[in-house]
Amino acid sequence: MIHRFKPSKYYQTYGPNPPVLKIKPGDTLIASTVDAGGLNHEGNEIAPDMRQHSPDIIYNSSNPLTGPFYVEGAEPGDTLTVEIQQIKLTRSTAWSRIATNFGGLTEEAPGRRLLYNDPIPVTRYVWNLDNESMTASTTLTGSRYKNPVIPLNPFIGSIGVAPRYGRVEISLTPGEFGGNMDCPDVCEGATLLLPINQRGGLLVFGDIHAAQGDGELCGVALETSSELTLKIGVLKESIEWPRIINDEWIMVVGCSRPLMEAYKIAHVDMVNWLMTDYGFDKWDAIQLLSQVGKCRVANTVDPNYAVVAKFPKNQLPT
Amino acid sequence: MIHRFKPSKYYQTYGPNPPVLKIKPGDTLIASTVDAGGLNHEGNEIAPDMRQHSPDIIYNSSNPLTGPFYVEGAEPGDTLTVEIQQIKLTRSTAWSRIATNFGGLTEEAPGRRLLYNDPIPVTRYVWNLDNESMTASTTLTGSRYKNPVIPLNPFIGSIGVAPRYGRVEISLTPGEFGGNMDCPDVCEGATLLLPINQRGGLLVFGDIHAAQGDGELCGVALETSSELTLKIGVLKESIEWPRIINDEWIMVVGCSRPLMEAYKIAHVDMVNWLMTDYGFDKWDAIQLLSQVGKCRVANTVDPNYAVVAKFPKNQLPT
Amino acid sequence: MIHRFKPSKYYQTYGPNPPVLKIKPGDTLIASTVDAGGLNHEGNEIAPDMRQHSPDIIYNSSNPLTGPFYVEGAEPGDTLTVEIQQIKLTRSTAWSRIATNFGGLTEEAPGRRLLYNDPIPVTRYVWNLDNESMTASTTLTGSRYKNPVIPLNPFIGSIGVAPRYGRVEISLTPGEFGGNMDCPDVCEGATLLLPINQRGGLLVFGDIHAAQGDGELCGVALETSSELTLKIGVLKESIEWPRIINDEWIMVVGCSRPLMEAYKIAHVDMVNWLMTDYGFDKWDAIQLLSQVGKCRVANTVDPNYAVVAKFPKNQLPT
Amino acid sequence: MIHRFKPSKYYQTYGPNPPVLKIKPGDTLIASTVDAGGLNHEGNEIAPDMRQHSPDIIYNSSNPLTGPFYVEGAEPGDTLTVEIQQIKLTRSTAWSRIATNFGGLTEEAPGRRLLYNDPIPVTRYVWNLDNESMTASTTLTGSRYKNPVIPLNPFIGSIGVAPRYGRVEISLTPGEFGGNMDCPDVCEGATLLLPINQRGGLLVFGDIHAAQGDGELCGVALETSSELTLKIGVLKESIEWPRIINDEWIMVVGCSRPLMEAYKIAHVDMVNWLMTDYGFDKWDAIQLLSQVGKCRVANTVDPNYAVVAKFPKNQLPT
Repeated sequence: MIHRFKPSKYYQTYGPNPPVLKIKPGDTLIASTVDAGGLNHEGNEIAPDMRQHSPDIIYNSSNPLTGPFYVEGAEPGDTLTVEIQQIKLTRSTAWSRIATNFGGLTEEAPGRRLLYNDPIPVTRYVWNLDNESMTASTTLTGSRYKNPVIPLNPFIGSIGVAPRYGRVEISLTPGEFGGNMDCPDVCEGATLLLPINQRGGLLVFGDIHAAQGDGELCGVALETSSELTLKIGVLKESIEWPRIINDEWIMVVGCSRPLMEAYKIAHVDMVNWLMTDYGFDKWDAIQLLSQVGKCRVANTVDPNYAVVAKFPKNQLPT
Repeated sequence: MIHRFKPSKYYQTYGPNPPVLKIKPGDTLIASTVDAGGLNHEGNEIAPDMRQHSPDIIYNSSNPLTGPFYVEGAEPGDTLTVEIQQIKLTRSTAWSRIATNFGGLTEEAPGRRLLYNDPIPVTRYVWNLDNESMTASTTLTGSRYKNPVIPLNPFIGSIGVAPRYGRVEISLTPGEFGGNMDCPDVCEGATLLLPINQRGGLLVFGDIHAAQGDGELCGVALETSSELTLKIGVLKESIEWPRIINDEWIMVVGCSRPLMEAYKIAHVDMVNWLMTDYGFDKWDAIQLLSQVGKCRVANTVDPNYAVVAKFPKNQLPT
Repeated sequence: MIHRFKPSKYYQTYGPNPPVLKIKPGDTLIASTVDAGGLNHEGNEIAPDMRQHSPDIIYNSSNPLTGPFYVEGAEPGDTLTVEIQQIKLTRSTAWSRIATNFGGLTEEAPGRRLLYNDPIPVTRYVWNLDNESMTASTTLTGSRYKNPVIPLNPFIGSIGVAPRYGRVEISLTPGEFGGNMDCPDVCEGATLLLPINQRGGLLVFGDIHAAQGDGELCGVALETSSELTLKIGVLKESIEWPRIINDEWIMVVGCSRPLMEAYKIAHVDMVNWLMTDYGFDKWDAIQLLSQVGKCRVANTVDPNYAVVAKFPKNQLPT
Repeated sequence: MIHRFKPSKYYQTYGPNPPVLKIKPGDTLIASTVDAGGLNHEGNEIAPDMRQHSPDIIYNSSNPLTGPFYVEGAEPGDTLTVEIQQIKLTRSTAWSRIATNFGGLTEEAPGRRLLYNDPIPVTRYVWNLDNESMTASTTLTGSRYKNPVIPLNPFIGSIGVAPRYGRVEISLTPGEFGGNMDCPDVCEGATLLLPINQRGGLLVFGDIHAAQGDGELCGVALETSSELTLKIGVLKESIEWPRIINDEWIMVVGCSRPLMEAYKIAHVDMVNWLMTDYGFDKWDAIQLLSQVGKCRVANTVDPNYAVVAKFPKNQLPT
């Protein structure tokens, strides 16, 4: 069954918020998203009362999310599968920004406002998106090189389920529940697996990035709106951290601080995966992963950093 | 001029060791290397008296290095260029290992021997190398999947010059001087740039890896011997950290701990490079790097970790 | 006015939970607390329905808290003052524990379950408390030294207000709102200052430690029950991080990860305090703090670590 | 036997430098030191040719050191004991400084020169030392509080032996060999224990601090000259990290980065000490240390940070 969904409100938390729609495993969801700042497909800001903050406090946070969707039969301990069939960009511009005390080159939050550090000027960039050539262009006024044209690689910046404990109040956060992973591998053609913590899973998503480099260095990608086509399923098995599968790789996303901890989480869970599902001995799994694995630093900005461990499918037993 | 060089001794330090050969900018060097454990092209260990330890202490460290080569006219403040024309693997096997308290999944050194941690068993792997098909194979006795065949990606694990201050006594160390970066981008077709700290530069190299994943997770790659063809040059300009150029990317290697610090170093120096050599405004450089940059975690094992920031050449002004 | 309060329920979150009592600035509160595991003054576990988990999920977390207390006139941006007049220990035992994958000598959470790490056995300790001699004693069965008698230094392990954003679901967490700082300086005779984020402040407290070393190395102190006498006030000025004042020191508590970040936060906020309230020039403040400051590592266990920067009152201008 | 020694040269490295004097275990050494910048007891800079840099490079590094002293009978694997009988300050001034990109509030070295960070102005402070009242005073021109008078706590900032591997070229470095620990516990009345790595030990020392707070926040203490009286001994047993014993505490100094790693090293080695020398079971040792231990952050500035784990002597079995 295919559900076409147009949000009338947007949650800005991950948690047990009231579902906007119930769907069944196997169903397909076609739903629109607004950008990280709440601008819709026409570039207009959504109405203030469409934002569903924490019930406890009024705070205009980023990443208004579409959902939550309740998946029938999804129980804590199961795994939600999200097959990303299409990411359609729905407007011709994206914005980005250099922001004061934000991004991977400043001190780590929340200690950013260190007194040796002068605040940096906020600089805003508008990028024009060309869905035909799959490129984006902007104007760099201060540089010799004025008009970069860069390739698009659209992906879902924020996608997650209700976390294990309560509600994550700031939608900028990634974790075991997925969330704001800002991971370019969550793109068309990939299937995302998320551990289900609450009945129904309560899937939300948004914050589409038309393009982003590894690490999301300045903290902001090419932020834009979209229409997503997602096929939803439920597996009756447990995982601990978000996993991604595409034609070439199986992947685990580790989210933590410091950065090395996120790296370790992703790689340890990959070793566990190789042992549990593919019959590898522990030391063999480590040895083989050491020689053929790839690693992506997805973001170095959010309240948790995200690192992706990748193992090539052609090295899995058949 | 082409120099064919066969080492009769191997230094195991980075520093002002007596040069084995003087060459000129523009010369080509064809030189053999032994593997990280000191095994030569026949798989035999080099004679103990060929190892040039620190003059101060007898210690059988890893990574015996070929060189140092004195480059005439190379002055502190200049940049050494090493064009890697060929990496010829000279034997049909490589070894690897899981080692006690070594690798990126243990505690960070030197705190590894933590009392909550039981030592892990040493496990040795022999990999057969096939230079025709550019693959390696081994036997995994404990796993369901017995006979992986993986692609080769030969590169130079250790290559560096004399450091700014004295001698780095353990050749496992990477730093501003290059050294044991364990970075797969230092491969055939790439040009490595190193900051020259001492007159003549004093280039050394060794520790060839026939294959290695990102991060060198278990701490040991496919260790083997080689014959290298390197074209050496000198630029009369200064750099601060190792840089790599290939057909697609300009790259900076940051070496430090914690991991986030290596990440920052690489990206800051990339921004500096974009400003200095390519006319980018600082904020524009950060913005563009944020959207098109790639990042490689090269190793999470050595006394300093290594992270590579990559910027695509097709985004540079022409 | 003096309020005697005996809880009939215990929240296990920091947040906008319904107040159990309204008090006025200047009032004194005499209230009992149960220990970190929910054992009361008779050593009995509180009834399950007295635990107020996150409204969203059933989870038997640690640190059941007394409160929240609504302080009339306390507005966001104000500062709550808590004068700790008495910490009366209300039973003659405390418990402690070595726990699997917990404490400052393991990997950092949430990456603790690393595969190189075998789980450690859970070991429980019962300590007998002597309020006369202010000592505690236990039996070490496996050691040559069988019967340590250690000094008591009772303090409040967890004390905080509603955080800025929503609800902190796990009461093990410290942060800008105070919380589970596990800081021995929050003891009799000290005044704690907390930034008020929500109307009424919503003060909660519990998790009394009869004794604890710096860092709370194994993750568990001498956990016991208490009756607290606290005088509550409100200042019409803003602070960013918890502050403590006693006869000798002014102190700031920084809570974050990694540990260095908590260190920086505490010291930067101390410099700000010296500039704002005491007329120091920035560089002078840093210089003087560098020469006379003390620093306490309060805990290296919780979801955020806590570090205390201390400046001696006798170095403040009079 | 008492040796009075006046240096005619000062090494600026830790390593196998030629001894300036041979002494025997049990001997007492009375020797002068210059300050961290090379200023002697008259405040004059030592002659350039008195500085013994790395033999390899000319670099005017800090911390010129008195020694090395060769202790007869000291073999690798033994432990050197240094009883600090007197630290006599030999001039009436000390200097300190706020320096660009130095100290614990900046980014971590070597990534300090991050582009978001503007350089801070160098500010120099002169402190007048009063050996009678054991106080120091300076003038804070920019502050309301003009004339702080602070207590002296003189200690040896840098003291170490030749390291295990070769030579540590920058005398700012602490490590297993001791070195620039900048630890206020290395003061009059304390005995320092250092692991001997090279025959004779090769003890060096200098960099006296007339006063310093925890962490050496700005990177520079009250730097001055001294005459030291040290009684030297050798124990025929092995240790791994520097240890300090005074009337109240046994202590271990862990030196590493990140800060948490130094914390872990110090505490793990303290647990080992309690097990090996005092008959504690491992879990009992951790439990007791957790409840009675203290921890000092000695420095957050040097190439390695230093953290001290302290266990009270009155909790040791008698």
